[in-house]
Amino acid sequence: MGRFRRLCVFCGSSEGKSPVYVEQAKMLGQELAKRGIELVYGGGSVGVMGALARAVDGAGAKVTGVIPHSLMQRELSGEAIGELVLTKGMHDRKAKMASLADGFIALPGGYGTMEEVLEALTWVQLGIQSKPVGILNTNHYYDALIAMIDTGLREGFIKEKHRDIYCVSDTVTGLLDKMEQHTPPPGLTTWLSPEES
Amino acid sequence: MGRFRRLCVFCGSSEGKSPVYVEQAKMLGQELAKRGIELVYGGGSVGVMGALARAVDGAGAKVTGVIPHSLMQRELSGEAIGELVLTKGMHDRKAKMASLADGFIALPGGYGTMEEVLEALTWVQLGIQSKPVGILNTNHYYDALIAMIDTGLREGFIKEKHRDIYCVSDTVTGLLDKMEQHTPPPGLTTWLSPEES
Ligand SMILES: [Mg+2]
Repeated sequence: MGRFRRLCVFCGSSEGKSPVYVEQAKMLGQELAKRGIELVYGGGSVGVMGALARAVDGAGAKVTGVIPHSLMQRELSGEAIGELVLTKGMHDRKAKMASLADGFIALPGGYGTMEEVLEALTWVQLGIQSKPVGILNTNHYYDALIAMIDTGLREGFIKEKHRDIYCVSDTVTGLLDKMEQHTPPPGLTTWLSPEES
Repeated sequence: MGRFRRLCVFCGSSEGKSPVYVEQAKMLGQELAKRGIELVYGGGSVGVMGALARAVDGAGAKVTGVIPHSLMQRELSGEAIGELVLTKGMHDRKAKMASLADGFIALPGGYGTMEEVLEALTWVQLGIQSKPVGILNTNHYYDALIAMIDTGLREGFIKEKHRDIYCVSDTVTGLLDKMEQHTPPPGLTTWLSPEES
């Protein structure tokens, strides 16, 4: 039994232009189930998101989708996967997903997904939470985001002690193994309680 | 009189390793005041943030800082600039800043700043708001973030119609002029009301 009971995965509601995105999302779903880890996710049934959730569900592990009422029409195509938790808005959705999960993984996605992974990292930096945050760098998708973080470090806007607050790998097992081992860098001060996020 | 009464600026509480970051923040502050635009910002008195706020205040325009109680100790160095609005938490801070401002600008900053600008873009994409979002690309700081967005477009995770939802320039006047002219791309559907954000 590993350290994770549930992982929250951020990802796009598109499939992406290469089949590799859906393939690796399925691989992640199967590996989560194999390790006995439940999925918490944005609740959609389309794109990378739907492929991931169906893979976890199909392999017999629990899926919990967290979705604002108002987005149901947009991100569900009739079919709900696993258990659905409906929230009032986007912020309640993120707070709910964060409270349910023991860690966060970003798969490829658009503005919303990029924002979600950076928000999880901001929370670690501020000491709101210290759960592992992993980036699955399928097809080098997130190279530029990692370069952006490196720019922040080089130019003095991100502190050296906050360099290693995320894990990155281009393979599913590589990422999960890193996250299992991850410890938050020493010296992170807690400034905010979870209620203040 | 331009279209903006107040602009919300996201930026770091560090100074950055090159003096150009503080210099351009001051230039932005002076130009906002010259155009009769008030500043809404994160309320800190240190780093790029403090330099910007002091420049607006010193040039005679109104400054409103919005800060969670819990971050006051961290981001204020005793001296408050302009009017301070205290919020319960990080989300209330962002909602308050968004409601006060007619548009958003990102100056260089760390995880939190990157998250804030991507959240503003996510809101535009979801139709929660249609206020202009500008990136001041001082010293090419945000080249990698723009490359990340381009990757999203190229790989099919960001739709073509959402390409032009932000403005970018490496000069203060260039950015403000673009934002004055900016119209949201046609065909953006509103899915969420502001209360649902
Ligand atoms: Mg956010």
